Amino acid sequence: MRAHCLNVHAVAEGGSPCAENEWESAAAMRVEIWSDIACPWCYVGKARFEKALRDFPHRDEVEVVHRSFELDPGRAKGDIEPVITMLTRKYGMSREQAEAGEDSLGAQAAAEGLPYRTRGRDHGSTFDMHRLLHFAREQGRQGELLDRLYRANFAEERSVFGDDERLVELAAEAGLESGAARAVLADPDAYAAAVREDEREAARLGARGVPFFVIDRTYGVSGAQPVEVFTRALGRAWDERTPVRLIDDGGGSGTEAEACGPDGCAVPQP
Amino acid sequence: MRAHCLNVHAVAEGGSPCAENEWESAAAMRVEIWSDIACPWCYVGKARFEKALRDFPHRDEVEVVHRSFELDPGRAKGDIEPVITMLTRKYGMSREQAEAGEDSLGAQAAAEGLPYRTRGRDHGSTFDMHRLLHFAREQGRQGELLDRLYRANFAEERSVFGDDERLVELAAEAGLESGAARAVLADPDAYAAAVREDEREAARLGARGVPFFVIDRTYGVSGAQPVEVFTRALGRAWDERTPVRLIDDGGGSGTEAEACGPDGCAVPQP
Repeated sequence: MRAHCLNVHAVAEGGSPCAENEWESAAAMRVEIWSDIACPWCYVGKARFEKALRDFPHRDEVEVVHRSFELDPGRAKGDIEPVITMLTRKYGMSREQAEAGEDSLGAQAAAEGLPYRTRGRDHGSTFDMHRLLHFAREQGRQGELLDRLYRANFAEERSVFGDDERLVELAAEAGLESGAARAVLADPDAYAAAVREDEREAARLGARGVPFFVIDRTYGVSGAQPVEVFTRALGRAWDERTPVRLIDDGGGSGTEAEACGPDGCAVPQP
Repeated sequence: MRAHCLNVHAVAEGGSPCAENEWESAAAMRVEIWSDIACPWCYVGKARFEKALRDFPHRDEVEVVHRSFELDPGRAKGDIEPVITMLTRKYGMSREQAEAGEDSLGAQAAAEGLPYRTRGRDHGSTFDMHRLLHFAREQGRQGELLDRLYRANFAEERSVFGDDERLVELAAEAGLESGAARAVLADPDAYAAAVREDEREAARLGARGVPFFVIDRTYGVSGAQPVEVFTRALGRAWDERTPVRLIDDGGGSGTEAEACGPDGCAVPQP
C-alpha cells in the first residue's frame, strides 16, 4: 500500500523509491559496548575497537552506546582496597602472581598506546561512575567521560574511588556541568534503574564477561579481540543490514494512514 | 571457537548449547514507538497496540520504548492557543470543518474506550513533556507518564500547556518524585539532547508522521493501524528473530577471550 510508504526522506536523498511494504532504513548502525571502568580489557578493547572504527568507511553512520556492567556488583560504595590486595584476597593469588598479572595487562595497554599504572591502583564500586555515564549519554558526552574515567583509574595517582568530588572534576573535564554531575552523584537513585537495566540486558544476551560488543543486535564480539576482528564484524553487520519492512492491513486500498504529521492529522470521513 | 561462546545463560534455561560462533539471543524484543502527546492518532494507536500486546504470547519478553516526535517542533513554550483556533489558522479550515474533525477523532477514541474532549482543548509545545518522558524512562515510569499525559491532554479540562506545576502533578500521579520532575522541567537542557536525538532517528528511519512503531529495527507499522496489524507485526518479528552471531579471530585455538568477568581477568602469559 504505497500510501503508507513514508520514504520521502530517502527519495529526496537520492535513494530508490519504496517498494511495496518496504522502505530503506537510513538509521545509524548501533554498536553497544558493555564494559566496566575497573576492567583492564575494556580499556584495551575500546582502543582496539576505535582503531577499527576510525578506518571503517561508514564510521559517520555508526552510533556507539556504552552500557553498564559491574565486575563486582556486590561491592559497597565505601569498600575500597588496593587492586593487588583484592587479587590476593579474592582469588587466592600470591602477591607475585598478582603483580605479574598487572605487569602483563600493563604491557597489553602499552601496546595500544595507553598509559597503565601497574602498582598502587585501587579497587572499589563503579556503580556511581556508571550512573554518571548514563547522565553523560543524555548530554552527548558519554564517550568522553568513559575515556576520562579509564585514564584516571588506570593511569593516574589519585584514586577514582571514595571521593565524589574527584568524579565531579573528571565529569567537568569531559565537558559536563559540575553542578549537574554533583547532583547525579548525590542522588543514589539517579540513573540507578538504567544501570541495572543494562546489566539485565547483558545477562539476557548471555554475556558473562566484558568488554562485550553487539552490533545492531545481530553480531557480537566478546573480549578485547584484535583490531581486524572488529573490522570484520563492522563490515559484515553493515553488508547484511536489512531495511525496516512496513506491515499494514494489506487492503491495498490506498487509504490514508491514521496518523498525524506536520500537515495535520488524517481525519476519518463519516 | 567454543571458548568464546558465552551462552551459559541460555543453556541453564533449557536452550540448546551454542553452535560455533553463535549463541541464542535471549534479549527482549524491543518495540520503539514514536509519538507526540498532542497527536490524537498516537493516543488511539497506543491503545490498539496494547490490545495486540496483551494477547501476544511472548508479551513478557517485549520491551516498549516511547520515543519523541513533535508535530509542531517550532512552537515556543509560551505559544498556546485552542486546538480549533490552531486548525482554522494553520490549515485554513472553517470552524465547522475543524469541529467536525475533532468530533470524528473523538469517535475513534471512544471506540477504543478512551475519553476525548472534542471542544476546548489547547495546543502548545510538547517539548518539555518529551523531556519529562525521557526522565520517566530512566525511572521505569515512561508508559505510566505517557498515559497520564494523554489522558490529561485529551480528556481533562485543565490544560497541560503553560504550567510546569501541572506537569509536576501529572508526573507525581505517574509515580515520579515531584522534586525531581520539577528540577527536570526547570532545566531546559535536561534531556533536550535525548528528545532531539529521537527526532533525528525518526527522520533517518523515514518517518513523516506518528504514531510510528518499529520492532527490533526490522518491522515497522505506520499509523494507528487495526489491532490485527500489530498482532501480525509482533508475530512476524518474533518468528524471524535471529540469534546474535559471535565473530572472533577464527583461530579455533580455544584460547581464552581477553576479557574480565566475575572470576577475574584473563591474563596473557608472557
